[in-house]
Amino acid sequence: MNLIILFESDFTDSVTAVLDDRRFTHIYNVQKPTPGDRLKVGLLNGNIGSGEIISLSDNKIALRVDLTYSPPAELPLTLLLALPRPKMLKRVLQTVSAMGVKKLYLINSYRVDKSYWGSPVLERQVNEHLLLGLEQAGDTVMPEVHLRKRFKPFVEDELPTIAAESRALLAHPYNATPCPAPEDKPTTLAIGPEGGFIPYEVEKLNQCGFESIHIGERILRVETAVPALLSRLFPI
Amino acid sequence: MNLIILFESDFTDSVTAVLDDRRFTHIYNVQKPTPGDRLKVGLLNGNIGSGEIISLSDNKIALRVDLTYSPPAELPLTLLLALPRPKMLKRVLQTVSAMGVKKLYLINSYRVDKSYWGSPVLERQVNEHLLLGLEQAGDTVMPEVHLRKRFKPFVEDELPTIAAESRALLAHPYNATPCPAPEDKPTTLAIGPEGGFIPYEVEKLNQCGFESIHIGERILRVETAVPALLSRLFPI
Repeated sequence: MNLIILFESDFTDSVTAVLDDRRFTHIYNVQKPTPGDRLKVGLLNGNIGSGEIISLSDNKIALRVDLTYSPPAELPLTLLLALPRPKMLKRVLQTVSAMGVKKLYLINSYRVDKSYWGSPVLERQVNEHLLLGLEQAGDTVMPEVHLRKRFKPFVEDELPTIAAESRALLAHPYNATPCPAPEDKPTTLAIGPEGGFIPYEVEKLNQCGFESIHIGERILRVETAVPALLSRLFPI
Repeated sequence: MNLIILFESDFTDSVTAVLDDRRFTHIYNVQKPTPGDRLKVGLLNGNIGSGEIISLSDNKIALRVDLTYSPPAELPLTLLLALPRPKMLKRVLQTVSAMGVKKLYLINSYRVDKSYWGSPVLERQVNEHLLLGLEQAGDTVMPEVHLRKRFKPFVEDELPTIAAESRALLAHPYNATPCPAPEDKPTTLAIGPEGGFIPYEVEKLNQCGFESIHIGERILRVETAVPALLSRLFPI
């Protein structure tokens, strides 16, 4: 937890926040601060700054909060990800959120197991893992996550608008060109499931203007491919 | 398992390999092939090719093996990684192996918890996780892993030779320059623990010729930082 994220509901007045949940436990057990110390805090979807400890007991902490600077820049990216299996979804949500993705579509594909759409992670823990990513990276802005359980209507009816005026790229290692150079430019990137999109899906995405790109001949797990691709596509 | 890795001990003659362990189980339950089918196989530290199924029962499979092409190119990289906590170590070993790193030093740092050096993952499962990474990526060449439990003698006595004639880089976000452009050139990269190397360690590495670099203001977990950095440092 490199940033403690505060919610409006933590505030008892305009500058005082009181924490008594897992954030308190983390601060108390890991950071072990004393009154007067300043912690790095940020308001969800808002600014970042410091929280000076004004009181600390064994079950809660009160901070005087001063939020002075903006969160890190977001990536100009809409990411389409074939829904990963639940265990990987947790880590991918954290990674995506930590790297500054703000628009994520979790989409269906032939090789997405139907059971994944009913997983407790997807139903109840998406925001929790996105928040862990923000806390890790030092960001406050919660990504939007959209679920699309039907591939064809999504690609035919919605995707043309989503991808309009952007670099539209499909990470798919066959008949592909090397990943383009970093550019700070609106981008829509589609990443398939384990085993890849099937030819029909690749064809539909190509028809929608998505260019197939690769980052080498090695086949990477999605949780590795995401940072490898994002790191190549955007300048520092 | 995108590649089935064979060992010399699997061979009953110069072209026939018999599998009855977790590789058999994977092939039998996931790939569900029939005799005559060809599977992608590779010999540990050797070539890649196909294995034609010559017999298949419910407890073993025999393959006629033909190894015709080389594994993917390795990265010209020596990676120094402050030993991560065991759960993360597993994933990092897989990632490092999948991305083509062939020389890995797991080193100590002030912020590496002493208990990590005694973890069962480190003592008994390193090769297992490296192998999973190779199977994922489609590579056969097992990385060398070296453990260095003492930071100072390693950096003073060994590292100058290890890093000689290479780009020596330290991923450290403070007083750092942006990560250099991709280049196919011998590189030594040091990545710190959660919380980073302490100033003394940074100073020692800087004195040894390591230049501090960053990939932006976001703080990434080591398992995310590794692919993000490697993807930026080397061309496709």
